[in-house]
Formats: sequence, C-alpha cells, structure tokens
Amino acid sequence: MSPAFPDPALGEPFLLTPGPLSTAWEVKDAMLRDWGSWDDGFRAMTRDLRSRLLAMVGDGAPAYDCVPIQGSGSYSVEAMLGSFVPKDGKVLVLANGAYGLRAAKTLQYLGRGLHLLDKGDYLPPRGAEVAGILASDPAITHVLAVHCETSSGILNPVEEIAEATHAAGRKLLIDSMSAFGALPLDVAALHCTAFVSSANKCIEGVPGFGFVIARKDEIASAKGNSHSLSLDVHAQWETMNKTGQWRFTPPTHTVAAFLKALDLHEAEGGAPARLARYSRNRDVVVEGLRGLGFETLLADRWLSPIIVTFFCPESPAFDFSRFYELMKGQGFIIYPGKLTVVDSFRIGCIGRMDEDVMRRVVKAAGFALSQMGVNSAAPPAAALEERKKLAA
Amino acid sequence: MSPAFPDPALGEPFLLTPGPLSTAWEVKDAMLRDWGSWDDGFRAMTRDLRSRLLAMVGDGAPAYDCVPIQGSGSYSVEAMLGSFVPKDGKVLVLANGAYGLRAAKTLQYLGRGLHLLDKGDYLPPRGAEVAGILASDPAITHVLAVHCETSSGILNPVEEIAEATHAAGRKLLIDSMSAFGALPLDVAALHCTAFVSSANKCIEGVPGFGFVIARKDEIASAKGNSHSLSLDVHAQWETMNKTGQWRFTPPTHTVAAFLKALDLHEAEGGAPARLARYSRNRDVVVEGLRGLGFETLLADRWLSPIIVTFFCPESPAFDFSRFYELMKGQGFIIYPGKLTVVDSFRIGCIGRMDEDVMRRVVKAAGFALSQMGVNSAAPPAAALEERKKLAA
Ligand SMILES: Cc1ncc(COP(=O)(O)O)c(C=O)c1O
Ligand SMILES: Cc1ncc(COP(=O)(O)O)c(C=O)c1O
Repeated sequence: MSPAFPDPALGEPFLLTPGPLSTAWEVKDAMLRDWGSWDDGFRAMTRDLRSRLLAMVGDGAPAYDCVPIQGSGSYSVEAMLGSFVPKDGKVLVLANGAYGLRAAKTLQYLGRGLHLLDKGDYLPPRGAEVAGILASDPAITHVLAVHCETSSGILNPVEEIAEATHAAGRKLLIDSMSAFGALPLDVAALHCTAFVSSANKCIEGVPGFGFVIARKDEIASAKGNSHSLSLDVHAQWETMNKTGQWRFTPPTHTVAAFLKALDLHEAEGGAPARLARYSRNRDVVVEGLRGLGFETLLADRWLSPIIVTFFCPESPAFDFSRFYELMKGQGFIIYPGKLTVVDSFRIGCIGRMDEDVMRRVVKAAGFALSQMGVNSAAPPAAALEERKKLAA
Repeated sequence: MSPAFPDPALGEPFLLTPGPLSTAWEVKDAMLRDWGSWDDGFRAMTRDLRSRLLAMVGDGAPAYDCVPIQGSGSYSVEAMLGSFVPKDGKVLVLANGAYGLRAAKTLQYLGRGLHLLDKGDYLPPRGAEVAGILASDPAITHVLAVHCETSSGILNPVEEIAEATHAAGRKLLIDSMSAFGALPLDVAALHCTAFVSSANKCIEGVPGFGFVIARKDEIASAKGNSHSLSLDVHAQWETMNKTGQWRFTPPTHTVAAFLKALDLHEAEGGAPARLARYSRNRDVVVEGLRGLGFETLLADRWLSPIIVTFFCPESPAFDFSRFYELMKGQGFIIYPGKLTVVDSFRIGCIGRMDEDVMRRVVKAAGFALSQMGVNSAAPPAAALEERKKLAA
C-alpha cells in the first residue's frame, strides 16, 4: 500500500512550504492515542527514534549519539551552540540568509564569541574564504554552516567548508534542519562535531521537537557549558541514557507520528529515495514555471531539492497576495520570499507530494496568472542583474 | 454529544498521571490535518488560543497578555524566569518538591540571584514565613510560588504567599502548570506579575507547548532580559502581536488539538466544572483506596484535586513494580511517588476521566493487592510519623 497523499478535495491544501509541510495520513493517524511518558512502551519508542536517526549518518555512527530536544528546530540550534561552544569559545557563522543570521543572533544572546561572515541574501560561503578567515582569526574555535539555507533554497557547499574547517583544526557545527533525511550527511567524512535537524522536515513528521546528533566525546565534555536548563544537550543525554526518559514531558503524539514517518522513510528507500523524489519535484516545478516565464533566483548548480525561490513577475498586473489566494483556492499554500532586493516567492519541494502534484502546481500557477491578466511572468531587469552576482 | 472517554477495550490505558494525560478522542482527532503556519487560518487559531486563555484569568485580564512558548512546561518556567527577572534580580523560590527545586536550578543556570526556601518533600511554605524572609533579604525582587506542587500533589497556599509578596512590594511569579484551568487563578487579586501553565494539564490538550500569562507592562519592559533567543517572552510577544505568527515553527497539530480541548473545557462549564469533576475523581479514589487500607501522604486540607500521593503498604508482599504491572494490565497507568523518606505512588485525577473510571481504579487496586497476596495496605509506622510533621 502506498502512503496516501493529502487530498485537496478533503479541504486540505498541499503545503508547498518547508515546514510545517504536508504529511502522510498514516503519520497523523499515529497521533490518535495517548502515551504515558514514564511507561516502558514510550521508552522503547524513544530508544527506537534515537537509534534509527543515528543509523542515517553513515559509518561514523558508533562515535555519535542522538539527543532529541523538545521545541522547534531553532531550539535545537540554540541547544547545540550553547552546549558545544564553551563560554570562552568563538564561532565563525557562515550566513547567507535568515537561518545563518538567526544562529549569529543566538550566539549574541548566549554571550559567546562571534565572527559573522554575512554573504547577503544567498551567495554561498566558499571553502577558500573560510580557510582565509580561520587563518586570520585564531580565536575561532567552531564553524557553523547551514546545509540548505531554506530562506533562498541554496544548497551550501558543506564539503568544502568541512574540509577548510578540519584543515584549520577547528570544530564543525551544521544546521541541517531542512536537508537531513534527504541530502547525504556523512558525519565522519565531514569531521562534524554536531548537527541538528527537526521532526518535520525531510523525515516528514509533524512539528514539535528537533534533535542534535553529536560526537559522544563532545557531548560528554559539554557538561556545564549550557546557558539553559531546558536546552542542555548534556543533561538531556545523561538522563535519557540513564532512565530512557526525556527530562521533561515529551511531545508524545509528535514522537509517535515521527516513528511512523520513519517507517515511511525507510519503506520509500531511505534518504536516497527521498532525495530522488524531491529532486523530481523540483525539476518538474522549475521546468514548468520556467515554461510560464518565471525565473529562479539561483542557477541550476545551486538549486536545492528542498525549496526553490522564484522572482515575482515584473508585470504590474501581478500582485503577490492575489497570487497567493488564487493558488490557495486551488489547494496550494505557497510561501513568500525573503530576498531584500527584489520580490520573490518560494515553492517547497519537500513533504508528502510527488511530481504529479507538482504538475498541478504548475497548472494552477498558469491559471492564477491568467486570472490576474499577467501576460508574461518575466522578472524585472534588476532581478536578473541580482542573479549575475552568483554566476560571477 | 458528550466527549468520548478513552476505552481500554481499544487497547489504550487511562493515564493516571499528571501529563501526559488521557485526552478526549475529539482532541486527538483535531490533529488529522496539516496547517501552514504562515496562513491566515492558522494565525486566526493562534489569536483564538491567546484570547481564550486570557479570558480565564478574571477581571484583571485587560492588563495581561498570553504568550505561547514551544516546548514542554519547564521551558515556559525558564522563559518566565529569564524574561521577567532582570540580570541583577534575585528570586525567592518557595520549594516543597521537584518542581520548586527545578525552578531554583533554572535560576542557577541563568546566573540570576536565588534565595531558596526548601521545605522538603511536601511541607507548604506559609505566608508568615515568606513575609519574614522578604523582610530579612531586601535584595529579593521576585517570589516564585508553585501553585500545585505535582510531586506530592499539595495545593500550596498561593493566596497567603501573594499577600505577603505584595505587602513587601515584591513581584510574584507562579508556576501554575498543573492547576490552571481547574483551580481559580485571579491574577488581579494575587497581584501576579506572570504565571505559566501548559497545553496538557487541566485544559486536557496534548503536550507540545506551554504559555506565559503576564502583565503587558512587564512584558514590554522585559526586552533585553532573556538569556535565550528561543525562550525570550518579549520577542515572541512582539512578533506575535506584529505578524500574528509564532517566531519559529509552531507545533501546529498540538495547537489544533488545544483549540478543541478549549471547546470541551468551555462546553463542560469552564474551570469551575473541571474543578468539580477532578475533585469528585479525587474524593472517589481517596475514599476507595482508604477503604482498602491505603493512607494518603497529606491531610484532607492539603489534598489537591490534581494528583494524590499514597504511601506504599508496609506488607512485604507488596512490590511496586508488580503493582504497576497489575494496574497496567487492567488498563491503568499509575505514577511512582517522589518522596525521599518513604515509598509512595501517585494517582492523577486530571485528564479525560470521571468518577466511574475512578471506581474502576479502586476495584483494580483491590484486585492487584489480592493477586500479590497483600492482606493489609496499611503503610509503615515511619510514613505516619512523617505525616505528623504536616499536621504540626
Ligand atoms: C535551515 C533552517 N534552520 C533553522 C530553521 C528553524 O526551524 P524552526 O522553524 O523549526 O525553529 C529552519 C526552518 O525552516 C531551517 O530551514
Ligand atoms: C508544577 C509543575 N511545574 C513544572 C512542570 C514541568 O512541566 P513539563 O514536564 O511539561 O516540562 C510540571 C509537570 O508536571 C508541573 O506539574
């Protein structure tokens, strides 16, 4: 039996957004039960969740452990930074969008040292640049990279960043929120100290917790670092290993849903199969919308299979709010863009949907344009100028 | 139509635990849909949630606002302490159990000043004591009270604590996690700066977020206090008021479930009706178990309608693990006790269950005792000695 896709005929639109995203019916169905968090049954679920996530990080897994953290994904980013960066540490944050900047802001709250490389709306931080900064600022102890920067959709070059970081003897932290579970993340090859992701991205669970996957020796020596009781990775890890329980009330229904999501993830063929489906989603929507005259922010080399940014058309007949409502009326929730220079919108490729859905998205967009009387979806010249920066 | 109670015939036990607790079928059923957090529909849900919670705090409501916080209830306690206690503030924590001690530990993480009054396993902090400490330690800026200390089940005398705090010109913070929604909490009468509770206590939602209800002027002046980006009440409030959205991905399904739980709460008759049902649950289980020879830790005056601690029988035939399994086999998950001096267990009275269920609990306990060959459920003399401390 193949998992059911959400059906707009049931009044439920597809979420073309990078979380919350559309989840399988089976995943939601798993929430129709209450679990006692102290009971053996739920402890076994927690154990299962941790070991199945760990099994996805490649050959390095035995040296790592998985620590779930209640709250949204940003809580896990903060937990990682507060727990692994010592009070006198300093982090090079590689930012090219909202999530990199949020990590920088988090460090400011925490009073940890910060060296911010801000590449603007989307330009990727490159390995050579990272090497240069690390050589010139010896106080830097850690590098924070964003795997897929969801605010533009760019897939950052984590391999070259990891290489530069390791060569300079610094520690690598990765925000792989929107990438893990679809894009490969080989912790050993990347010499990664820790990374984070969350329940409702590429594993396609519902939102409610995130998780930190980190080297065991790093977790063990993180004792006493954290600025926060709730977000102390070491304390959560120690309690979970000792008692099998989360320190504080876990989001039991979300955990049950996540285990079902892991079942579907495995049944589909794991991360490679998911990457293939998402890539196909992206290819179909990009080709289709380009066919209508839309242009993507990024050149193909940088497009991720997670989410794609399109420029808004120059045509004065185009109005984003109207476009949003017209798409919603056809069963698709799209996502506004986050570029500072030109107007844009985003289409997420992750969640319980396939290329057939994406073809309907393209058709719906064509219909929306015609309803608004937009004859050409071509972006303004400024947008294309903007894009040249990346090619350069 | 009266809400469906969980049915052990469906393989789902009743959770006689103070969260996660048994929830109505309708509450879980509300999770069978995905919501886009950016969409108008979900923003309206967030607005609704905030205003309906605020409507429960009495005549003082217009001066207060409600700020939901992702994560478990402890996250909301930490958010309240980190946001309302300035960096040079000092908090008198009134502890008589695990949750008071956790608040004290949180303040240590945060590096805020702490004056701990530790009354041990259950003895209530009294108004006169609080007045004395506040008079002798002028550095104290805030008092933290635990409304119902869930680890013993005691209902602390918040009114006299509030009076002493107000008379001394200090600010009152309340952890009303397990009490709000059933026990009255009149913010104006208590001169309360802020209090917290969570989705899956007396409102009977599923776990995944908590909420802070605080004076608007206190929230406004909390800017810059927080030690944590994720747990910054001011920042969450400002964003919610400006955009209608949570700052980071909300637990959308949990929120939908909570709104349904609020419907059922209102339909039942609000907090007074819930208090009546829970009180009836307590009376039936206390009377029934006393009839079997069990004794409660607390004298009637201190028993809360939230959760009750019973001493384990002295009989050598009694074994808690076996008792737990025998109760579970009959469809009831009970809760181990937290007393340091004598063995105990707890029976929660909150969640989607009524006095009929409690009568079945009593019957199940009688059956469990007979299976173990326990002839008398009377506690050891040490337990009764312990209890005298409270009467004194
Ligand atoms: C790369 C990245 N980092 C962090 C986050 C923040 O996660 P959350 O919204 O769950 O806090 C997101 C969310 O989309 C993300 O894509
Ligand atoms: C009084 C009190 N405070 C704090 C908490 C902590 O809440 P959570 O387990 O959701 O973090 C609880 C949980 O039972 C509680 O009863």
